[in-house]
Amino acid sequence: MPLYMDVHKNVDGATATAVADARLKDLQIQEKYGVKYCKYWLDESTGTIFCLVEAPSKEAAERVHREAHGLTADEIYEVMEG
Amino acid sequence: MPLYMDVHKNVDGATATAVADARLKDLQIQEKYGVKYCKYWLDESTGTIFCLVEAPSKEAAERVHREAHGLTADEIYEVMEG
Repeated sequence: MPLYMDVHKNVDGATATAVADARLKDLQIQEKYGVKYCKYWLDESTGTIFCLVEAPSKEAAERVHREAHGLTADEIYEVMEG
Repeated sequence: MPLYMDVHKNVDGATATAVADARLKDLQIQEKYGVKYCKYWLDESTGTIFCLVEAPSKEAAERVHREAHGLTADEIYEVMEG
């Protein structure tokens, strides 16, 4: 399955707790779209979040974020892990 | 040790092989600066590279890239893993 890295920028209120809550919402609905959010990394000071996600398509990965909590990424890249 | 995600953008010739070669050069000198490059992810189509790195400081992480192959990141974020 393709692997994507998405990037959220300048997210207001991106505390560890708030992002963990949003994450939980992703996990609760992702199966419906064949998506698997893997790891994420957060820089609280700039409100930057990187999410690594396996998904059948970029659109499927985005749909999960949109439906789960509405916070879609600013950028999404199809990546291979080195 | 702090954890950073760096982002390289629009890198010319960022093929899997070229990036793996650059990576090897990082690994060969990183110990000198107390740095540990962990994983990386590459989008060949846009020349985007994400490197996850443990380092005593942002500057130390950058120094390894600069000295190893000269390809420093465009952005670097101190992150926590979620």
